[in-house]
Amino acid sequence: MSAPAITTGTELPPGPREHLTSDSTRRILRLQNSFLRHARDFLREAGFMELLPPIIGPVTDPGIRGAKQVDVDFYGHRYKLMTSAFVYKQTALLAHDRIFYVAPNVRMEPLETCSTQRHLAEFHQLDIEMAHTSREEVMDLAEGIIVSATRALIAESQDDLVALGRDVDALRAMVAAPFERLPHADAVTRLIDGGHAQSAAAEIDWEGERILSDGSARPVFLTDYPKGSRVFLEREDSERPRILRTFDLLMPEGYGEVISGGERESDYRRLITRMRETGENPSKYGWYLDEVKKGIPPSAGFGLGIQRFTRYLVGADYVWQATAFPKLPGIVSP
Amino acid sequence: MSAPAITTGTELPPGPREHLTSDSTRRILRLQNSFLRHARDFLREAGFMELLPPIIGPVTDPGIRGAKQVDVDFYGHRYKLMTSAFVYKQTALLAHDRIFYVAPNVRMEPLETCSTQRHLAEFHQLDIEMAHTSREEVMDLAEGIIVSATRALIAESQDDLVALGRDVDALRAMVAAPFERLPHADAVTRLIDGGHAQSAAAEIDWEGERILSDGSARPVFLTDYPKGSRVFLEREDSERPRILRTFDLLMPEGYGEVISGGERESDYRRLITRMRETGENPSKYGWYLDEVKKGIPPSAGFGLGIQRFTRYLVGADYVWQATAFPKLPGIVSP
Repeated sequence: MSAPAITTGTELPPGPREHLTSDSTRRILRLQNSFLRHARDFLREAGFMELLPPIIGPVTDPGIRGAKQVDVDFYGHRYKLMTSAFVYKQTALLAHDRIFYVAPNVRMEPLETCSTQRHLAEFHQLDIEMAHTSREEVMDLAEGIIVSATRALIAESQDDLVALGRDVDALRAMVAAPFERLPHADAVTRLIDGGHAQSAAAEIDWEGERILSDGSARPVFLTDYPKGSRVFLEREDSERPRILRTFDLLMPEGYGEVISGGERESDYRRLITRMRETGENPSKYGWYLDEVKKGIPPSAGFGLGIQRFTRYLVGADYVWQATAFPKLPGIVSP
Repeated sequence: MSAPAITTGTELPPGPREHLTSDSTRRILRLQNSFLRHARDFLREAGFMELLPPIIGPVTDPGIRGAKQVDVDFYGHRYKLMTSAFVYKQTALLAHDRIFYVAPNVRMEPLETCSTQRHLAEFHQLDIEMAHTSREEVMDLAEGIIVSATRALIAESQDDLVALGRDVDALRAMVAAPFERLPHADAVTRLIDGGHAQSAAAEIDWEGERILSDGSARPVFLTDYPKGSRVFLEREDSERPRILRTFDLLMPEGYGEVISGGERESDYRRLITRMRETGENPSKYGWYLDEVKKGIPPSAGFGLGIQRFTRYLVGADYVWQATAFPKLPGIVSP
């Protein structure tokens, strides 16, 4: 097993022909397809309904960590490509209590993210939202999807995993033990004690995520991010001011974050306050805020980066290996 | 049973709250979700692999019938939103012989399409491509998907269909008999004989499609469109010059076209000729033409409009009833 490392030199994808005809790409796409099938089966059993993802709209949520939104002209009106389907999945709970999307997203990530091995400008999320529930319940749901799908893949696709050089014993260890749950403050202490200069007020940085997930044989839910480190949609803990009811999931062996989620702010006044606190102008959020004002169900949910999870599953060095037509930040390619 | 009619006055979607909380929307979305599950099962049994759809790229296929492409700025480069994933699905056959997407597409349709009851500016296609095959084989595949999924839905979701006022006997009649196959020239004769002024050189117009599908209890494959009526990707019949190896599928009861497909041109020189004939500049098709030149598998395939098929399935008047957040041409809405 060789854990991935953040490299200074970055290997870029080959052209489409070399990429698509390689034995490893074929196997990786097959495994990704199987993972999604198992995830869909799991969600259906749990009463979730899949919706078709919108990709443009007047409103999307703000980019994070420097990622930029993309404008499109819709009959003379300024629309945006979805950075995530968040505003739609929260509102869609008016129709059904448990919904999900397999949603394409576009984020103009900063050029330097080309060297993180895990950023694409176009990627896909398994985007799940559930009404009247808690962060803990959706963390259990995330764990359930990952464990059951990975178990199924170990059983039915071991040949593909072995041919790709995946350490299948590491996957077996992952599904065997409950995922760790680590509050942000404890993660910061652990990193600082280990010599990594992590800010207590910010999201765990990419190198920090790698360190935390490298030192663990099992996935880690990072909980309780501090206010200021996240966008407005995350709900503040009513009993612990300045702590958000969020979570990230880091996969082991250094693969880092594959899921971001938490409880959502659905109260109109508090949402406006959270927008202002995070530097967003509420007037930009027209139809979405109108619906929140009229009342939408309180909810929790998460987005799982499908290419990132696939990278972990198959043990690939680069996230672009987990997509048929990779688009890296700033690089013109199919 | 009341067949839908093209109206002069158009009923527009209500706001998101009224739409999402209505009993009929909930049932329609549930039926759409079930249709896609059955379609995926059918395709998996037939050896197809699902890929995640790209939504932006330097190249997409040209809009048809006046629909316009949408530009996006990708780090200073002019990209487009996918009008369809065609260039990707044809190239993805380098990785796997049978692939499909459930792909969001954006087409800036002319404003007058608001009154056709069956145009959305954002919609989704079940987009299927198969290497080394014929038009006849993919027509059989389309028929197989529709018949098997509809049979399953009649069996398991009759309550929803009845509550929506769907004439379930009409669905039973649809799945009972083989689909009709009607060459374009014969369709033109039939329309002209019936008093509708259909041009022999053009695609069957919307009213013509409605008339043809209104007069039939079973779906009709319209084949053999004449050159000039379609974009460059459709292959010309090598034994019958000026006839394209295309097909459309019209659903009965006046619902009209839900599928467009055919054999593809994969020969570089002939593709360049077809582009020039259809007024396209080959230099706009950079990476795609590079790959065609190096060689891609000959193929056939089709796109099924998911909202359009859902409209037929549930017997809705308007295609926007079959989507959670409808975007009509020119109308600003979530």
